[in-house]
Amino acid sequence: SDIEGDFVGVGVDQELISSVPSNNPNFVSRNFTDAEISYCRSQPSPASSFAARWVGKEAVFKSLGVKSKGAAAAMKDIEILNDNESGAPIVKLHGDAQVQASQKGISKVLISLSHSDNVAIAFAQATRS
Amino acid sequence: SDIEGDFVGVGVDQELISSVPSNNPNFVSRNFTDAEISYCRSQPSPASSFAARWVGKEAVFKSLGVKSKGAAAAMKDIEILNDNESGAPIVKLHGDAQVQASQKGISKVLISLSHSDNVAIAFAQATRS
Amino acid sequence: SDIEGDFVGVGVDQELISSVPSNNPNFVSRNFTDAEISYCRSQPSPASSFAARWVGKEAVFKSLGVKSKGAAAAMKDIEILNDNESGAPIVKLHGDAQVQASQKGISKVLISLSHSDNVAIAFAQATRS
Repeated sequence: SDIEGDFVGVGVDQELISSVPSNNPNFVSRNFTDAEISYCRSQPSPASSFAARWVGKEAVFKSLGVKSKGAAAAMKDIEILNDNESGAPIVKLHGDAQVQASQKGISKVLISLSHSDNVAIAFAQATRS
Repeated sequence: SDIEGDFVGVGVDQELISSVPSNNPNFVSRNFTDAEISYCRSQPSPASSFAARWVGKEAVFKSLGVKSKGAAAAMKDIEILNDNESGAPIVKLHGDAQVQASQKGISKVLISLSHSDNVAIAFAQATRS
Repeated sequence: SDIEGDFVGVGVDQELISSVPSNNPNFVSRNFTDAEISYCRSQPSPASSFAARWVGKEAVFKSLGVKSKGAAAAMKDIEILNDNESGAPIVKLHGDAQVQASQKGISKVLISLSHSDNVAIAFAQATRS
């Protein structure tokens, strides 16, 4: 294909871990899938894990280059799981996010997450490869 | 083309928003285009927007992999505008920056910006696609 | 080749500069090559340079998408040098890191480093191009 390996968009996002309301049950259930919630709650610092996934979702959204719908953007449609073998984070799109990615020919979004004591950061890359 | 989709360089940069002298008219007029200045001044926090664009310019410069000319590097030649449709930041090169990118076969630089309360961060990716 | 320009993985990492024990001789000799040590010690702020390279190694490791071996991961096998011409950081893999990259078809890892007064950050991108 002509677009094999072509690159579509990048996204970076960061937040203070303390600014992500991961102890608010409505925020969590509205924005995270069951698998994400289970994973984050099993980690040494659930607040850090929720924050890292939250900035991850924002970074993926930016990498798709679609118009922001503000509060209406369904962040639950951007799911960040972990590869069984390597443990590395992987992106799975659902619903609107998947439709919009498909329309742009995006077949894969790569992601990396990091958190220090107080800041979470994520980088995403949307590709057609 | 053999270099279709080939990837050339990446750049990351961050700064404390307070360390970017966006209230210094000389700094602003030397480093930002009229379109950038209008955009940043129209934003809720002009200081944050100037800082994000400033680290964006640095990240783009790094992604080009050219020798730093220090204070002489014309950051105004690296313009960061916003896509009319998505609102996402896009890079437009001018002057020396454009010449150097062309010589390396770079046809597009992708960019993403983020700022929290006190830190601005940017990631850039130079491609031949 | 079918995988020309294909993209494999990304990695981001950040640390407080003060949390990287660059004044501990064992930490330094275990994780950095002679060339890296010489370079960092020649810089205006060796602590910042060691921290930037340390997060760089972590970012490269993440970009390879291999299973973490924790303390056993040989960070010395991920060497970050500087391009003679541009001064930009470049990645050279040795030992296990090189073997694992080869097995995944990774031929090049791009890297960018940044440090502010107190935080070091790095972004890495593994490619098959």
